[in-house]
Amino acid sequence: MKTPKRIAVIGLGRMGGALARNLAPHFEVIVHDLDDAAIARCVAAGATGASSSLEAADDADLVVSSLPMPAHVIELYETLAPHLATRRAETGAETIVMDTSTVDPDTATRVAELVGRSRSVACLLGKGPAQAEAGEVPLFVGGPDEVLDGLGPVFDRIGARVHRLGSVEAAASFKLVSNLIGMTNLAVLAEGYTLCRDAGVADDAFTSALADTGGWSAQAEVRLPWMIADDFDPRFAVRLGLKDLALTVAMAARRGIATPVGAAGMSQLASAAAHGHGDDDVNAVLKVVDPGRNDV
Amino acid sequence: MKTPKRIAVIGLGRMGGALARNLAPHFEVIVHDLDDAAIARCVAAGATGASSSLEAADDADLVVSSLPMPAHVIELYETLAPHLATRRAETGAETIVMDTSTVDPDTATRVAELVGRSRSVACLLGKGPAQAEAGEVPLFVGGPDEVLDGLGPVFDRIGARVHRLGSVEAAASFKLVSNLIGMTNLAVLAEGYTLCRDAGVADDAFTSALADTGGWSAQAEVRLPWMIADDFDPRFAVRLGLKDLALTVAMAARRGIATPVGAAGMSQLASAAAHGHGDDDVNAVLKVVDPGRNDV
Repeated sequence: MKTPKRIAVIGLGRMGGALARNLAPHFEVIVHDLDDAAIARCVAAGATGASSSLEAADDADLVVSSLPMPAHVIELYETLAPHLATRRAETGAETIVMDTSTVDPDTATRVAELVGRSRSVACLLGKGPAQAEAGEVPLFVGGPDEVLDGLGPVFDRIGARVHRLGSVEAAASFKLVSNLIGMTNLAVLAEGYTLCRDAGVADDAFTSALADTGGWSAQAEVRLPWMIADDFDPRFAVRLGLKDLALTVAMAARRGIATPVGAAGMSQLASAAAHGHGDDDVNAVLKVVDPGRNDV
Repeated sequence: MKTPKRIAVIGLGRMGGALARNLAPHFEVIVHDLDDAAIARCVAAGATGASSSLEAADDADLVVSSLPMPAHVIELYETLAPHLATRRAETGAETIVMDTSTVDPDTATRVAELVGRSRSVACLLGKGPAQAEAGEVPLFVGGPDEVLDGLGPVFDRIGARVHRLGSVEAAASFKLVSNLIGMTNLAVLAEGYTLCRDAGVADDAFTSALADTGGWSAQAEVRLPWMIADDFDPRFAVRLGLKDLALTVAMAARRGIATPVGAAGMSQLASAAAHGHGDDDVNAVLKVVDPGRNDV
């Protein structure tokens, strides 16, 4: 599979927009979003704006999507798939489809069915918008190896490391699972921090002591300092985390796999949203167990 | 407070025995346990055996205890406290009491009330028996600073790093909380690993990809390789973990602090025990979500 020259990027939110801006200097990049300002931010980086997803995908070798919900992803490819099939029949042009949205594996399956499994790639993005903008996110990819091989130069521009997980479903599952684990680790950290604070343990002693135990985690490394500082600026908002964990727990239930602890973690995000903290960072799970934090 | 010369160690299990053996070359160490073989292993390292806790504590400058349950700790100090008080009244001899058992803060309070808060120290041990035997455990200590200062040479022999958490209650709370967080991180890791395995993600890809996400943790670092290898050799047994988490969740409830996620983690340890895995390592929470692992 040869490396694409013309790339459509559809969905220019904080992650998709970052992808488009990182690709624009190195490929012919055509972008579309419902928000004109989002298009303008990519045009400023060298991309070409399009007024519809069909116009953006026209003549593209690669379509990259970054959309909020599974329903948006399916709707997009229901629209694009017939167009891509017609073009392929008429000109022999193969278009690769690469969805980067955090979706459940059933959605990845549906996309593969719509556009053809041999042309379908999942590329889930780790970390957050700041790292995406810097082209430093880890990439969790799935799909046919020969297609992934050809996308190497694309991956090089948008991410730091490529992790091949297997099928598109495996990659989608992995991203959801990594969020389930991380957000649940965060929720129990908030409980433990609240208990220790109540017992009179100083914040700095708690941090350095916990780092010396089996209770340490990537979430503690990143978010414990923010919790201590009452910093709830949304690097990853509660409502986004809740969306992901709801997909994960539902996926597990459909497969008949019990996730009682992850479901409890999800519920803490739901509680945070219910208490009005949906636009805070996910560390607002702290406010659920320690309501005094709401007054800060 | 001067450094002790004569140290009684009461309770010579895997942690207490290790403490006694590390202290024996450097102090006058008198040991007691209900199990004669446990005493013999410490005598071989240079300690002197005693036939009762009272005999061991007689003339000691420092009493160190390492017992399984809060009730054992309280029973010990109900026995020793009158004896220590009489000796103090008759000779002016001050005896410091240092409990290293993983207990709830109410138990730490009761010990401080029995022997006097100015003489009472909590010294919780991190890691496990292998590190304790090597004198490399982190120490989570609480009590009066001037007493802790005098115990520096003791801490040097039994542990690697000293973390001062505040009161004896703060130290006891911290140890319980670190286990609550760690075991809950482990339980949700088992759920996530099972989901990814079911989705066809290879074990090595799962490990290296997860290490690149906010889902990584000290438990993943240590126990994910054991899970993958179906290695349930009890470095920390389910029944011990369950005991600790039950104390933690009960402590939280008494303080009116919600721990829904930690309680779900505790329940997975209870399920593991209920399914007959109480003597397995705590990573046997994997067997609860993936019963196929039972056949290995």
